[in-house]
Amino acid sequence: MIVMTVFAHPDDMEVHCGGTVRKLSSAGHRVIEVIMSKGNNGGDEEVREREAIEGAKCLGVDRVEFLNHEDGRISVDPESIDAVRALISKFEPDVVFTHSPNDTHQDHRRTFRIVTSAVSKFPEVTVLMGEGPSTVGFQPVVYVDVTDVLEKKLEAVRVHRSQVERGAISEEMVMKTAEFRGMEIGVKYAEAFEAFRISGSLLLG
Amino acid sequence: MIVMTVFAHPDDMEVHCGGTVRKLSSAGHRVIEVIMSKGNNGGDEEVREREAIEGAKCLGVDRVEFLNHEDGRISVDPESIDAVRALISKFEPDVVFTHSPNDTHQDHRRTFRIVTSAVSKFPEVTVLMGEGPSTVGFQPVVYVDVTDVLEKKLEAVRVHRSQVERGAISEEMVMKTAEFRGMEIGVKYAEAFEAFRISGSLLLG
Amino acid sequence: MIVMTVFAHPDDMEVHCGGTVRKLSSAGHRVIEVIMSKGNNGGDEEVREREAIEGAKCLGVDRVEFLNHEDGRISVDPESIDAVRALISKFEPDVVFTHSPNDTHQDHRRTFRIVTSAVSKFPEVTVLMGEGPSTVGFQPVVYVDVTDVLEKKLEAVRVHRSQVERGAISEEMVMKTAEFRGMEIGVKYAEAFEAFRISGSLLLG
Amino acid sequence: MIVMTVFAHPDDMEVHCGGTVRKLSSAGHRVIEVIMSKGNNGGDEEVREREAIEGAKCLGVDRVEFLNHEDGRISVDPESIDAVRALISKFEPDVVFTHSPNDTHQDHRRTFRIVTSAVSKFPEVTVLMGEGPSTVGFQPVVYVDVTDVLEKKLEAVRVHRSQVERGAISEEMVMKTAEFRGMEIGVKYAEAFEAFRISGSLLLG
Amino acid sequence: MIVMTVFAHPDDMEVHCGGTVRKLSSAGHRVIEVIMSKGNNGGDEEVREREAIEGAKCLGVDRVEFLNHEDGRISVDPESIDAVRALISKFEPDVVFTHSPNDTHQDHRRTFRIVTSAVSKFPEVTVLMGEGPSTVGFQPVVYVDVTDVLEKKLEAVRVHRSQVERGAISEEMVMKTAEFRGMEIGVKYAEAFEAFRISGSLLLG
Amino acid sequence: MIVMTVFAHPDDMEVHCGGTVRKLSSAGHRVIEVIMSKGNNGGDEEVREREAIEGAKCLGVDRVEFLNHEDGRISVDPESIDAVRALISKFEPDVVFTHSPNDTHQDHRRTFRIVTSAVSKFPEVTVLMGEGPSTVGFQPVVYVDVTDVLEKKLEAVRVHRSQVERGAISEEMVMKTAEFRGMEIGVKYAEAFEAFRISGSLLLG
Repeated sequence: MIVMTVFAHPDDMEVHCGGTVRKLSSAGHRVIEVIMSKGNNGGDEEVREREAIEGAKCLGVDRVEFLNHEDGRISVDPESIDAVRALISKFEPDVVFTHSPNDTHQDHRRTFRIVTSAVSKFPEVTVLMGEGPSTVGFQPVVYVDVTDVLEKKLEAVRVHRSQVERGAISEEMVMKTAEFRGMEIGVKYAEAFEAFRISGSLLLG
Repeated sequence: MIVMTVFAHPDDMEVHCGGTVRKLSSAGHRVIEVIMSKGNNGGDEEVREREAIEGAKCLGVDRVEFLNHEDGRISVDPESIDAVRALISKFEPDVVFTHSPNDTHQDHRRTFRIVTSAVSKFPEVTVLMGEGPSTVGFQPVVYVDVTDVLEKKLEAVRVHRSQVERGAISEEMVMKTAEFRGMEIGVKYAEAFEAFRISGSLLLG
Repeated sequence: MIVMTVFAHPDDMEVHCGGTVRKLSSAGHRVIEVIMSKGNNGGDEEVREREAIEGAKCLGVDRVEFLNHEDGRISVDPESIDAVRALISKFEPDVVFTHSPNDTHQDHRRTFRIVTSAVSKFPEVTVLMGEGPSTVGFQPVVYVDVTDVLEKKLEAVRVHRSQVERGAISEEMVMKTAEFRGMEIGVKYAEAFEAFRISGSLLLG
Repeated sequence: MIVMTVFAHPDDMEVHCGGTVRKLSSAGHRVIEVIMSKGNNGGDEEVREREAIEGAKCLGVDRVEFLNHEDGRISVDPESIDAVRALISKFEPDVVFTHSPNDTHQDHRRTFRIVTSAVSKFPEVTVLMGEGPSTVGFQPVVYVDVTDVLEKKLEAVRVHRSQVERGAISEEMVMKTAEFRGMEIGVKYAEAFEAFRISGSLLLG
Repeated sequence: MIVMTVFAHPDDMEVHCGGTVRKLSSAGHRVIEVIMSKGNNGGDEEVREREAIEGAKCLGVDRVEFLNHEDGRISVDPESIDAVRALISKFEPDVVFTHSPNDTHQDHRRTFRIVTSAVSKFPEVTVLMGEGPSTVGFQPVVYVDVTDVLEKKLEAVRVHRSQVERGAISEEMVMKTAEFRGMEIGVKYAEAFEAFRISGSLLLG
Repeated sequence: MIVMTVFAHPDDMEVHCGGTVRKLSSAGHRVIEVIMSKGNNGGDEEVREREAIEGAKCLGVDRVEFLNHEDGRISVDPESIDAVRALISKFEPDVVFTHSPNDTHQDHRRTFRIVTSAVSKFPEVTVLMGEGPSTVGFQPVVYVDVTDVLEKKLEAVRVHRSQVERGAISEEMVMKTAEFRGMEIGVKYAEAFEAFRISGSLLLG
């Protein structure tokens, strides 16, 4: 299986689906991480790029692609859509993880729009949307047990020192979310996802 | 994988997910079909029971369980929930297929309610809801390519002669739905499903 | 302020809004607890009645009213609505806490229906809906910080020994929910509520 | 009756409501077609303009207005709203057909926003939203039997050779959608629409 | 045009769509009024029957059919659906007016369910849902200007003396709703409706 | 209590929540009014600024802050969010009133987005959304009785002479909305609000 993550900022993948990514990479699946913006509003771009690469390594990501949008100004336009579409065309992912459309951060909502536009020509691709500190009214349907990899997820989150220090993300937030979603399906820790579209061949074999 | 279908009447499984069931049984998965009512409002119960068994055979169903609710009066009460829960407990399905809550037939809506109540103690079970002639406002997220098995699905639908003759169901309706859902994902024929809850281990391995 | 809780079974109030109730009773507000059914499906009625009374005492509830519906068969009919309406008329609550309509338990959904029907003649009454193990798709808008009273809530939950022992409820579930909702508003523990209608004079003084 | 269609690109009117337009023009109603962008991302503008004019002729459109937005960059701003509002003011349509807000193409969503903003001063105008290849979660309420004019609709779609050749639209997609929507209301072919607002005098005479 | 109204109680038609009914009957259309229950919870059945007949006369209704459900206990079952279906089959209405599914009165919600089930075999029938004192979260799309007939609607409401006296309905409530809905479309008084399904031939000729 | 209103144009606060603001200021609460744009599309900026200041005085607003966005082009970007966040940080409001996301005016939708983004770091702040002439599908949960202050609200609306004269707002529209919302809760005049998030300590003390 080829997995692609398309999130707005350097630490979003870790927070929204780090456990699932680690689980998939450990099982031998290839993971491509796309980062829309280096997150200059939340810190120094070079620092954040290094943290992203370190976080990716921690979770077994195969490759990180930076799309260089300006932080806070990701725009839903032909170029931004074409750039993501080109990556989907190149790497042929089976699953794409991205943001929920119900999110108070404009870059997150717009990244979702860009992804769903980009996949319009690839109807066999499964698209799942993750949960983070700015999602609101999140209505998950897919639950992934991440008990075995939670420690790795936390490690990957900690790697984003610049964001942990300014309080944008925290281990505590990640833990409590994982415990709550885990409780909903009777496991210790889980990550939950909304679904835009799911391929039956992926789900049912 | 163990698959369970819980639909209201003898022909509902064939119409809502017959292709997917055939695909799963052909791949070696065990399918248990639960039928809430023998459908006495739509014909003779004995005839309909025979048609159900013939339809099940046609699709590779392993076992058919009749729950003997009165047609049109399926009731969401402790007995009806316990009966479905007992079957889930006994057969331990990975996936349950049932009706959509958005359906103009009271038995369909109530079967959905019974199923979601019955699975409340089995959070690892994936629950998907299918599309039929009385669903309204259907919002599918899971698409199954049934191109290879469409002919078998049609055959299983034809088996319900008593319903085809009175116009309750038709090959044409099944075909047009399969073509439309297929078009949405770029294949010839598909079945589409709403999702109540999806197990990540099923979806992502 | 007069507060009324209307939940289906003896342990529901404790789980859905026990912290908020304790907070309100401690602040000198009068709390009336209405219990629709003694919960005979989940244990012995006498035992459950005693547990309910003990739980109520633990949270500072002023009075417990039992409406004696049969467990699993609460019915939305003129008598059930009139019974709740009579209590609202008698005690004149400012706020009523009840179940969410999005709940897989039929008694919970129906209790919500009965309450919203009963309050139709009392438009000044605020109606809030709580979160429990069978709510689904919960979309809270009101958050109550219950950090100071969480221990008391847990104590009230523990009082329902018959339910804790059979695994219907657990401290762990209550804790994890309280932590997650707390995290959403930046406090240690919170209870969250959906809102049917909120009186401006209550909210804004 | 005066009918106005406001779609993003040169082929959208034909795909989303070509049958209905043909039916209305044949019945003697005047149809004004507004095209927001000449669709430079999908081909040569001059070619697409010619195709649009040919498609319009095929369906009996009285007049085509081009608004010259850049493809993929339609913007919801005072100028774009004023331009549509001016056309509504000038032609005084009874019905406006436009895109659904639930669409993965940004130009489609934004055209919907522009139209609903533009009609805010014309509350007597009926606004209906059509279905195309990029609509998602479409929830139609209005169904138009287009059996008699389906051939003309297909002809109008074929006219957009540049788009058919690059696979952006196809007769097959149009046919399957028409068959599915037709099936839903018991006719051979239909077009379906969501409704933003419907004038009672139009519906009930 | 043949119009059918299917409401739960003797005064519901007048309140929910009395203006529209008067307008249609005045224009020469035939109106059949179906009343599910004689409303024994709200007064004497004989009195209410007389008031219903008087109200119907006032609005130009051609015929009143009583279905004799018990007030507060309308049940969604084969008999109740068949009874409404038989009337639809007999009178062949083009439009059916009924309750909104979003209503705090159980009889209203269930009447909506019965109607949408009954029309499932008549996909050409337009179904609209009206607004009354117990509707909640009403989301109208169809607006009918009732300025010319508002006085007649008020007269028909007043006819239900037993209900006006006990405060179940009032001219004031009807007036304020008509003014608000009128304001939304720029006329003096209007009635507004949600739509389940609208026939294109009715809307567009 | 500190109250902040954040609306797009100089007359929006008066129309959407003028009664509530007056009530709060009269009760001794401090009200800060933030105006995103001076509304140059609807008149002369200097005139509109004067009207805003006069309207604010009429309702007891303590302070008016102008953010100088261009009318019709309010943009959801880091600067616009930071500007509102800085004001929230400075004035520490308990409640923020803003636009509903369901509004046909782009500036209104975007102001809602900016506000919900700005408050993301202030989870204790209650956010309510008001109703005006361009809101659609409004689903209020909070109702404020403004009977005592309606005359003051109308006076504050009249102050916006430039807008009343061009028909953008009117006393009649304000009156009819207040009467309708009042009717829903059994008082003479009310203002109604949707809720994004409500602090339990505000609601329940």
